Amino acid sequence: MTEPATASTGPRQPGAPARSVTVQLSPPYDVVVGAGLLEEAPRLVPQAAVAVVTDDTVGELHARRLVAALEATGKRVATITVPPGEASKGLATYGRVVRELAAAGIGRDGAVLALGGGVVGDLGGFAAATYLRGVPVYQLPTTLLAMIDASIGGKTGLDLPEGKNLVGAFWQPRAVLADVRTLRTLPARELRQGVAELVKTGYIGDLGLVGEAARLLVPAAAGQGSLNASEAELVELVARAAAVKTRIVSEDPHEAGVRAYLNLGHTLAHALEAASGLALSHGDAVLYGLLYAALLGRARGMADVVDEVDRLVGQLRPDPLPDVAFDALVPYMARDKKARAGRVRFVLIAEPERLELVDDLTEAELRAAWGALEELVR
Amino acid sequence: MTEPATASTGPRQPGAPARSVTVQLSPPYDVVVGAGLLEEAPRLVPQAAVAVVTDDTVGELHARRLVAALEATGKRVATITVPPGEASKGLATYGRVVRELAAAGIGRDGAVLALGGGVVGDLGGFAAATYLRGVPVYQLPTTLLAMIDASIGGKTGLDLPEGKNLVGAFWQPRAVLADVRTLRTLPARELRQGVAELVKTGYIGDLGLVGEAARLLVPAAAGQGSLNASEAELVELVARAAAVKTRIVSEDPHEAGVRAYLNLGHTLAHALEAASGLALSHGDAVLYGLLYAALLGRARGMADVVDEVDRLVGQLRPDPLPDVAFDALVPYMARDKKARAGRVRFVLIAEPERLELVDDLTEAELRAAWGALEELVR
Repeated sequence: MTEPATASTGPRQPGAPARSVTVQLSPPYDVVVGAGLLEEAPRLVPQAAVAVVTDDTVGELHARRLVAALEATGKRVATITVPPGEASKGLATYGRVVRELAAAGIGRDGAVLALGGGVVGDLGGFAAATYLRGVPVYQLPTTLLAMIDASIGGKTGLDLPEGKNLVGAFWQPRAVLADVRTLRTLPARELRQGVAELVKTGYIGDLGLVGEAARLLVPAAAGQGSLNASEAELVELVARAAAVKTRIVSEDPHEAGVRAYLNLGHTLAHALEAASGLALSHGDAVLYGLLYAALLGRARGMADVVDEVDRLVGQLRPDPLPDVAFDALVPYMARDKKARAGRVRFVLIAEPERLELVDDLTEAELRAAWGALEELVR
Repeated sequence: MTEPATASTGPRQPGAPARSVTVQLSPPYDVVVGAGLLEEAPRLVPQAAVAVVTDDTVGELHARRLVAALEATGKRVATITVPPGEASKGLATYGRVVRELAAAGIGRDGAVLALGGGVVGDLGGFAAATYLRGVPVYQLPTTLLAMIDASIGGKTGLDLPEGKNLVGAFWQPRAVLADVRTLRTLPARELRQGVAELVKTGYIGDLGLVGEAARLLVPAAAGQGSLNASEAELVELVARAAAVKTRIVSEDPHEAGVRAYLNLGHTLAHALEAASGLALSHGDAVLYGLLYAALLGRARGMADVVDEVDRLVGQLRPDPLPDVAFDALVPYMARDKKARAGRVRFVLIAEPERLELVDDLTEAELRAAWGALEELVR
């Protein structure tokens, strides 16, 4: 357990006590969740020369205090800033990042600090995985989605014109440092992306998170006022969700088994994103995907969580379900790169906190659930 | 031990018995050395869909019979051909290769076959390491240098404008398949590159290789006639050299310890290559580097192999020592990326087959050995 020091050089408030969970890999690493962790980074990052990889938006909001804190302890800091958005997760930006790492003279005894959301985490993580055949990386997620999901588990990746995440590496961070204070600056739409994964995480391994997400985050995520949760509540919520992901990744670092459960809601989500030309955001797609999985499960006599998920979807008000026909979605569900040998594979909720991999769904079942989904949300 | 079948579909001759050595990593893999192995590849590569990555020169000489053999067993084969030469070890060609892998629909159950010399092995290996976060790769080296060195041990890499091999990954192949028949088509200059590493390998761990190289390869490598060695002799020689590299890599897969011995001759070699703007080939640079290391060692009272190495250099006739001043070389020796904390680190021959890492050489010692080298070879 890592506690942030309460003494500080600046006028910052003492934060809520930090919590940490350990990813049990070799070597193990901590996911530390706290308030004001960016200022604590120098204590948690031993390397003397570091490169902060961030995007313009996050850089403007948070990089300055991170860099100032690092430099105040005598570290040499290079800052590499990329444009915000998915387009930066490509080979061109990757090439720029590794060249800037070389130009900054970062060596194998240096480190990369990826400060931002999922794009920066994937890009900075892949750059660290491959620069000099691998240098240490610290993930400093600034979105709820990245804190509870993308930053944990070592998956890094780039998109190709041929598809998302077609290039990448498994490269575990030395630590994940999630500063919940960065959530205060998150636009409602971005918060909603995280809530979707939080709800998913609840069904996978900690059902209480579903209720807590509804109580603490849904109003702000729906654009109704600002984030009311206290720092202590945010630390608790993020740490609980991180613990679920951490447990799964520890069991299955290379996605050979139980890690597939993390794809709950994602088979339809990926198809919706692809069929809509990425017009629908990932979190919104996951919300529809969760509801679809709930419908498929209920029709098979599994747990009935349809009403609960439907209520959350109604409150969160995702962008409208894309106007695509079921027949247009099927090839994308089958082509999902996690599908083996062309079969459609779904994660369903047998009971909350007990999932099941199902690969014998008939087209009739898939079509009926799609009809039910359209009826609920259109 | 893997033996190639002697029955064959084509009019090829039965080869000399293959030899194999095992790299003791987790999982272990075999380096198989034989004559006619390209035609045996289908038996050694279980994947049903494969991509052969090669260059124009090697593709013309050897890809057809490999692809024909693979297709004859019903495999789906995509061929990805890049221009020959170091320029293909860059981000642009890498991007083309991973995009072609995606376009060919290679999945995680497919494989990459890197058919060529060091450039193709590094490029194809890195593409395999990162495409879909890692797919199986088989190294099919077609140069002596690649057979005994680059193809074994899982180091893959790309160059950046800022320096060589600044991007890469450790990604062990499923197997290395070295078909010595490809050596028959190797230009003398390319053969010389391999002989340089073979001599280095001899001093590291199998002194008999130095004499065997002189007897079997040096005349052809010096451009005096074609390669006279029999297939059985070539198989024996390559397998013995591969065994030395294999032993070191098994002990130290991530270059944290004894793998540094493989840099014998390379500290000066890298400096010569860099200071000459890469005008000097790597193998030629290694020959001068070996002689320099021999001179440094003798001056310290270590083994005296100066005459032996000098004789080989004289026979092999590398391109002339670049006309650079000692003072221009020093920064490149210090900047070698394997140097830690800025110190110059040399591998010296305490006795044949017993090396020593030395990092307390004075500038006076380095300068004196450079003077002695110039006297011998200019």
